[in-house]
Amino acid sequence: MSKIFVVFFGLMLCGYVSGQDSPASAKSAIEGVLHEQAAAWNRGDLERFMAGYWNSPELTFFSGAHQFEGWQAALDRYKKSHQSAGKEMGKLEFSNLKVEMLGPDAAFVRGEFHLTMSDGKTPHGLFTLIFRKFPDGWKIVHDHSAGE
Amino acid sequence: MSKIFVVFFGLMLCGYVSGQDSPASAKSAIEGVLHEQAAAWNRGDLERFMAGYWNSPELTFFSGAHQFEGWQAALDRYKKSHQSAGKEMGKLEFSNLKVEMLGPDAAFVRGEFHLTMSDGKTPHGLFTLIFRKFPDGWKIVHDHSAGE
Repeated sequence: MSKIFVVFFGLMLCGYVSGQDSPASAKSAIEGVLHEQAAAWNRGDLERFMAGYWNSPELTFFSGAHQFEGWQAALDRYKKSHQSAGKEMGKLEFSNLKVEMLGPDAAFVRGEFHLTMSDGKTPHGLFTLIFRKFPDGWKIVHDHSAGE
Repeated sequence: MSKIFVVFFGLMLCGYVSGQDSPASAKSAIEGVLHEQAAAWNRGDLERFMAGYWNSPELTFFSGAHQFEGWQAALDRYKKSHQSAGKEMGKLEFSNLKVEMLGPDAAFVRGEFHLTMSDGKTPHGLFTLIFRKFPDGWKIVHDHSAGE
């Protein structure tokens, strides 16, 4: 085994240890998470929608000028604002998604959300998401959304 | 030279090729950029404040539900809102900064901004910043801020 080959093997090992996908397949996996989230939202399945988020008390949300933390708190908040008496899910769409890789296991996503409610209202706004790759896939670890 | 040493050298090379700092020194460098930005703002030096941002037309800002792009546009916008007739810089402070590394050359920062104006008003809010490491240091490539 030549030294060159051993160095090459060492470099390959770097990629292997970090469980590296190609940037294109990572982007596609991240877009897949977002498409699954929108589909889950639109069939009223908030648990499945929340599967796109890191299930941790350290998950953070910045919503306008307010912050809250934790997966369970986020699920409870969505249930209260979209599944309690007189509330509705609306139809959710994402647009102008820009996925940018920040390393083999991290990325950020810029995009727009649009909700269409049964009364014709269309809450919408911008979001910045931080994604990290976990053993069970890509998950949002921080969500900054601002709507109007 | 043993094979183990050569593999070790290969792994070191990975770090060298990516220009990798230790996470602690990277965090400290990023905090330094933010402290320099606040100091520059507070002496009315907007050009120096903007040195913390990637000098590119691809730099993006999400301000509440509005987006704009480009370093020059950002500088012009800050000049208009803080240095034109009847406007003022105010005193800028950042607090609750959380720097999280996303790889050897990427990080995101969560924090709060507080401005104190001469009329006693205190515009404040939350921000999410994406930092990337460039040959001339750590720079913000995306800024999502929302105030009230």
